[in-house]
Amino acid sequence: MAFHLPTYRTPDFTKLPFVAAPTVTFEKVKIHGVAPENYHATSIYPEYLQLKKKQWVLLKESRMDCVVVREKGWALNVKEFRHLKVGDLVALGRGENGEEGIYIHTGAFEFPWEKGEKFSFRSRFTRETSFSIDYDELYDLLEHDRDKGFIVWVLGPAVVFDRDAREAFVALIEEGYVHALLAGNALAVHDLEGALFGTALGQEIYTKRTVELGHYKHLDAINRIRGQGSIEKAIDEGFIKNGIMWAAVRKGIDLVLAGSIRDDGPIPEVIGDAYQAQDSMRVFARRATTVIALATQLHAIATGNMVPSYQVMADNRVRPVYFYTVDMSEFAVNKLANRGTLTARSILTNVQDFVVTVERGLGKRCE
Amino acid sequence: MAFHLPTYRTPDFTKLPFVAAPTVTFEKVKIHGVAPENYHATSIYPEYLQLKKKQWVLLKESRMDCVVVREKGWALNVKEFRHLKVGDLVALGRGENGEEGIYIHTGAFEFPWEKGEKFSFRSRFTRETSFSIDYDELYDLLEHDRDKGFIVWVLGPAVVFDRDAREAFVALIEEGYVHALLAGNALAVHDLEGALFGTALGQEIYTKRTVELGHYKHLDAINRIRGQGSIEKAIDEGFIKNGIMWAAVRKGIDLVLAGSIRDDGPIPEVIGDAYQAQDSMRVFARRATTVIALATQLHAIATGNMVPSYQVMADNRVRPVYFYTVDMSEFAVNKLANRGTLTARSILTNVQDFVVTVERGLGKRCE
Amino acid sequence: MAFHLPTYRTPDFTKLPFVAAPTVTFEKVKIHGVAPENYHATSIYPEYLQLKKKQWVLLKESRMDCVVVREKGWALNVKEFRHLKVGDLVALGRGENGEEGIYIHTGAFEFPWEKGEKFSFRSRFTRETSFSIDYDELYDLLEHDRDKGFIVWVLGPAVVFDRDAREAFVALIEEGYVHALLAGNALAVHDLEGALFGTALGQEIYTKRTVELGHYKHLDAINRIRGQGSIEKAIDEGFIKNGIMWAAVRKGIDLVLAGSIRDDGPIPEVIGDAYQAQDSMRVFARRATTVIALATQLHAIATGNMVPSYQVMADNRVRPVYFYTVDMSEFAVNKLANRGTLTARSILTNVQDFVVTVERGLGKRCE
Amino acid sequence: MAFHLPTYRTPDFTKLPFVAAPTVTFEKVKIHGVAPENYHATSIYPEYLQLKKKQWVLLKESRMDCVVVREKGWALNVKEFRHLKVGDLVALGRGENGEEGIYIHTGAFEFPWEKGEKFSFRSRFTRETSFSIDYDELYDLLEHDRDKGFIVWVLGPAVVFDRDAREAFVALIEEGYVHALLAGNALAVHDLEGALFGTALGQEIYTKRTVELGHYKHLDAINRIRGQGSIEKAIDEGFIKNGIMWAAVRKGIDLVLAGSIRDDGPIPEVIGDAYQAQDSMRVFARRATTVIALATQLHAIATGNMVPSYQVMADNRVRPVYFYTVDMSEFAVNKLANRGTLTARSILTNVQDFVVTVERGLGKRCE
Repeated sequence: MAFHLPTYRTPDFTKLPFVAAPTVTFEKVKIHGVAPENYHATSIYPEYLQLKKKQWVLLKESRMDCVVVREKGWALNVKEFRHLKVGDLVALGRGENGEEGIYIHTGAFEFPWEKGEKFSFRSRFTRETSFSIDYDELYDLLEHDRDKGFIVWVLGPAVVFDRDAREAFVALIEEGYVHALLAGNALAVHDLEGALFGTALGQEIYTKRTVELGHYKHLDAINRIRGQGSIEKAIDEGFIKNGIMWAAVRKGIDLVLAGSIRDDGPIPEVIGDAYQAQDSMRVFARRATTVIALATQLHAIATGNMVPSYQVMADNRVRPVYFYTVDMSEFAVNKLANRGTLTARSILTNVQDFVVTVERGLGKRCE
Repeated sequence: MAFHLPTYRTPDFTKLPFVAAPTVTFEKVKIHGVAPENYHATSIYPEYLQLKKKQWVLLKESRMDCVVVREKGWALNVKEFRHLKVGDLVALGRGENGEEGIYIHTGAFEFPWEKGEKFSFRSRFTRETSFSIDYDELYDLLEHDRDKGFIVWVLGPAVVFDRDAREAFVALIEEGYVHALLAGNALAVHDLEGALFGTALGQEIYTKRTVELGHYKHLDAINRIRGQGSIEKAIDEGFIKNGIMWAAVRKGIDLVLAGSIRDDGPIPEVIGDAYQAQDSMRVFARRATTVIALATQLHAIATGNMVPSYQVMADNRVRPVYFYTVDMSEFAVNKLANRGTLTARSILTNVQDFVVTVERGLGKRCE
Repeated sequence: MAFHLPTYRTPDFTKLPFVAAPTVTFEKVKIHGVAPENYHATSIYPEYLQLKKKQWVLLKESRMDCVVVREKGWALNVKEFRHLKVGDLVALGRGENGEEGIYIHTGAFEFPWEKGEKFSFRSRFTRETSFSIDYDELYDLLEHDRDKGFIVWVLGPAVVFDRDAREAFVALIEEGYVHALLAGNALAVHDLEGALFGTALGQEIYTKRTVELGHYKHLDAINRIRGQGSIEKAIDEGFIKNGIMWAAVRKGIDLVLAGSIRDDGPIPEVIGDAYQAQDSMRVFARRATTVIALATQLHAIATGNMVPSYQVMADNRVRPVYFYTVDMSEFAVNKLANRGTLTARSILTNVQDFVVTVERGLGKRCE
Repeated sequence: MAFHLPTYRTPDFTKLPFVAAPTVTFEKVKIHGVAPENYHATSIYPEYLQLKKKQWVLLKESRMDCVVVREKGWALNVKEFRHLKVGDLVALGRGENGEEGIYIHTGAFEFPWEKGEKFSFRSRFTRETSFSIDYDELYDLLEHDRDKGFIVWVLGPAVVFDRDAREAFVALIEEGYVHALLAGNALAVHDLEGALFGTALGQEIYTKRTVELGHYKHLDAINRIRGQGSIEKAIDEGFIKNGIMWAAVRKGIDLVLAGSIRDDGPIPEVIGDAYQAQDSMRVFARRATTVIALATQLHAIATGNMVPSYQVMADNRVRPVYFYTVDMSEFAVNKLANRGTLTARSILTNVQDFVVTVERGLGKRCE
């Protein structure tokens, strides 16, 4: 069966309540980083602002819990509070149905299952949920978005602790299923430790034998990469010859490594400032059509916060953004599933098996 | 690499402390089901009793937390307390090094990793443990034991909630990797519900669509099988045409369904009495060389209680019994890993992925 | 604030659709333990059957997933399938709104929060849910039901592994907050091990020091109680002098110990047959007004299966049955919370802290 | 019973292998932030360096995975790699028993339980571990360290989601049991949301009723505090009148709020740069005698990384640092328990109950 994206339902602004709605009001920022009272906060849904009478403008590259700023030329920019500058014009109003010139379009997509077709809606996932269809859907989606979308992976370090998972993820990169990679210092460190010493936290990756002075291995890896100046240089100079960092750099994949207070080192490419890291992540969140977050609450929630439920494509068509969370704990995945969007999916399993299964599943199709 | 079982280290009973050890003492049971004071309780390890001077006899088909009864003809029988009859001769003594004529052989096997080879010892497993080698070892082991061992699977109902996992398990049965199956009423009910209605708890297994009057489906399945008289009859008469019960019955696999207080029904084959069910399970536990327990604490612990760490084969060679627990929770698997045996392994993952991965992994080898 | 039970909304059977509804049909059982096709299966909700025109009869002592049998004299009996006898008259029909003479009353109670009062509805509980109000509500409820209800506790063995929790639960028994106790062999064994040796699984309960030959302690406890003939005799003869079994027997509390395939022993009072154990549990489930299940999936689900959401009191008033599940895992509590009743509550915490907190909280009120 | 700290075993450097050991070697840093090859990495244990013959110097304010720099005047400074400057003299050597002039003192403390006393060693904690003694020990410890130590709390946001826990923690602050508080933006945000609106994430804290426009509450809280300029100003000006931030600021408690990529806002006091935040946290980690980390993996692991197992007091006595982790998940607490120190303790429970129980337990003693 050919894969089809769900249809976007463009609102009919020639009808009520829209024709009776006022235009949206803006107010100037008076203190740097502080929004005026009664600011409108964005959601994950498509939102329209009536800028001039009968002119409803859809926000692009939105994200939740931000404010809308009207730039020069009346372009709309979804901005974090901390980026507000004195004089910025912030949209006001908390009504969601046009009362204040803002419309939040919660039922934007017509999903196949609404017509009794293949996909079905499930809001709750537990370890006993059946996931066969979710894998099959994901294969369809990844094949589609490899060429026509932008696939963002968010990785916790568990992916590089296992040989098969690490190799499968390298294969996914090489096969084109990874457009951007968001992770932390630990993922890079243990992947590079693997490349340099064949170990993860001092244990051989496959045999799990503890090597001599094993507790030095990740520190040695960090110190050597710092000595080289950057991951990229280390790879260019042939110092690093395998693994996820190696594959990502060689393939030219967009990479953001965000720092955290747990880090040793850090590795040079890691962005130490959390908010600067958010800005770098959002560059790719703005383009995402599919996000897959593996075994990391910190990075998964951070990414979830900045990815809306829809994407306006180059040809102005509107499509959903799919968001997968893979984790072992119901508690962890439900934190994200609670986004309340129909395109949030959770798979409860070990990410090692998930990555291996996805890589095999996609491979079988290509044969 | 050819798979080799670890070597058994036969104790040298011509040396101290054995040559100085007394013979073991027995005392008669006075109350049905009650052992005499100072009874010896068995462990999971190979145990030897010195019956007559210089005659050390290895217990066969042992299990932990039982007593040793000397039958007529001096045969030794490892018996549950509840089976003790008045007059039974029970071995006494709590010393473990021959002091009372009993020797518990805790370091019985010479594992490859002790010689720096492939397998390595890991006592603790978490979701971040690398499992690639464990899968590879398991493939080796299953191929070996398919012909030369006895493979017991212990299944929780999660295996039949997912289409791919259910089909993969059927394939494992058909390929000969399943010799005995221990489970509960729920596994049978949901598997049969799947065969009859294509649902599990009223949801279509693959699409997860809820069917009309879905909450009746498992009750209807139970009621119809009860109407047929038994699972076996329902299969013989072509009433059930797919699934794990169907494959197991057609293949003639040993099957024990043990009842529990959670059960609806039950399905006719289910053994309602917990201790009678234990007896039926132990028939196969006595023969087990490999046990794989999937997503069931109740049945996994029950089986773990009755499977020793060694098996005396037909040719009197002694080999280890491997015990795998697969579950999503560290708490669950550690309950079993705490058996303290080198052949207990845990894999932290969703059993859906586990079954699919194992079936594919074995398949790839056969090609 | 005085505690009030929510008001029961008696359906108005003088209106549509009831006045147009037929009387319910019954069909005879032809095979022992098998219901006729199109049997009606009960739910957790109040259900009315129109036996004769204008005579709608409310099921008493109902439980879900059973059938309704019309006894002699037209009394209605909610019966497990396995108890069906040839000739039993079973109610037919799967319509829930009177179409076949059966009405399932899902919105039966008017809860205070529907009127904007204290209690509020929450269907989902995680470890981050705020539980202060749930504790306060529980204190109100336990005080009310101590005298005017029937409080059933369902205990996993974790409650007796901790000194403070074990003592707090004994206090709850002595203060009258426990009317029936449902548990398994393990709870009794480790409680009695504590009474006899001051240990749990061979560790001193408070200091956690492992005692010599500690692994014999629970077997010795079982063997000695078996030697005494029963827990009750062991207590009567002063052999057991503290703990939950001791307090329960002395206080004359209703006690059901249900066997399982995990059991060692068992202790004499344990009921080995799962379905006979269900019958014994249901005697108290029929009377329950509040159920509190602590750290046991097996017994909690078993009890949940047999407790309806309402209770018809002696004076014919209808009140809700409250059902609390306390566990560490979202997965475990959600299995029960999914009952879909407004009176199911989950508290995510360690039962040790829960029992201690509840005992202190009730104590403070009595001062 | 009076509480006693375990005795420190000062090594006897007049004996072998110490008298035969060389002095430690240092090498200059050539690249900023990069240690010379063969650098010595610190552990959590007391470590001695032989600077001159017979002069073994104990590291003060150590932390693991750092290097030792010899400052002017031969003072030793345990420094993160990223702080290394060109020319810094870094200690070399990976031997741990004096071979290279470095001695790691792993068995430094004589704990009471080694002499058969109250405390006992437990390396593994599960939800079924008995925690009564751990609470009692903690009360002793907190009373002792309130006056004679430095108690650092590390808080996840769950503590402020519950009314009783929030109030109990405020009481702990006011009673003097909190010397430093390490947390993230979310803890502050939800605590301040509580103070401003009585809600947490838009739900009333006690009743859990969702208020109108509830999803704006945490954003409004952030925006208003940003408008005030800082938490401190907001409190000074009477804008914030209750809660943990309020109590901490009024009591003058040391506070570090570390930013993360999940943050909205942030609140002005939050340190955005992860490594600058580490530096601020380490100021208090250097002084810690007891650390209690509640329901936060990120901050708990970050703090665990920088707290050694010992503290050199003002009078040069050496005492252990106690490190408690409280969480719902075995996986989470074991990450920290794996530090391999005898003073790491885990309590598996909901932090709401933990905080309330500790506050009550301490209160009872003071009466």
